[in-house]
Amino acid sequence: MEVESCHVDVVGKAFVDHYYNLFDNDRSSLASLYQPTSMLTFEGQKTFGVTDISCKLNNLPFEKCKHIISTVDSQPSAFGGGIVVLVSGSLQLPAEEHPLRFSQMFHLIPTQDGFFFVQNDFFRLNYG
Amino acid sequence: MEVESCHVDVVGKAFVDHYYNLFDNDRSSLASLYQPTSMLTFEGQKTFGVTDISCKLNNLPFEKCKHIISTVDSQPSAFGGGIVVLVSGSLQLPAEEHPLRFSQMFHLIPTQDGFFFVQNDFFRLNYG
Repeated sequence: MEVESCHVDVVGKAFVDHYYNLFDNDRSSLASLYQPTSMLTFEGQKTFGVTDISCKLNNLPFEKCKHIISTVDSQPSAFGGGIVVLVSGSLQLPAEEHPLRFSQMFHLIPTQDGFFFVQNDFFRLNYG
Repeated sequence: MEVESCHVDVVGKAFVDHYYNLFDNDRSSLASLYQPTSMLTFEGQKTFGVTDISCKLNNLPFEKCKHIISTVDSQPSAFGGGIVVLVSGSLQLPAEEHPLRFSQMFHLIPTQDGFFFVQNDFFRLNYG
């Protein structure tokens, strides 16, 4: 285990807070968190690389949204100081009376300069 | 990308079918899918290694259960032919009138003999 459990929890939570803050307030900046090898599966649709992932996220059928986080679970990944994070929460959209439950999973890989980028990203709405 | 996208989907789906078949019919055999480096976070509780993970799964507060899978999303992981899988579905317990929605995430790592073991495992119930 290359990353201590406590450190992993702190980094996972900090990443998640940063990610959804950008998503809800400055969505185009999310591009900075992906790299050319990154993959996003959004509601079953696969997207690869910074440009296509950024295009997907910036063209979702809602402009304003607010993510409310319920749980953040983090573990060190097998290789190279990476971190796997599973998030559950709710997504409030202007057109919806009730928030929509979602799950999102990130595989974070450390960069040369001590930050992390998103290698794997899965988003799913949870229908009740 | 070391594992082709289509192959990843097939392996991810086959693994998920196998995993929940064991879980619902022969839960003690799930131990065969973990290794000493494996980690499980079950409803926020962290468990490490085959023995502790197996103990956790075999001592959940229900004996009989049935998993119904809704979605399986798979991607190649960054390193070594691994696969990341996000599952959503429902868990039917005898004591519950309605099935409980859940999300589970697996990071699968190939073994020397061509199979996969679970390196990272997260399970969360999704409350409505």
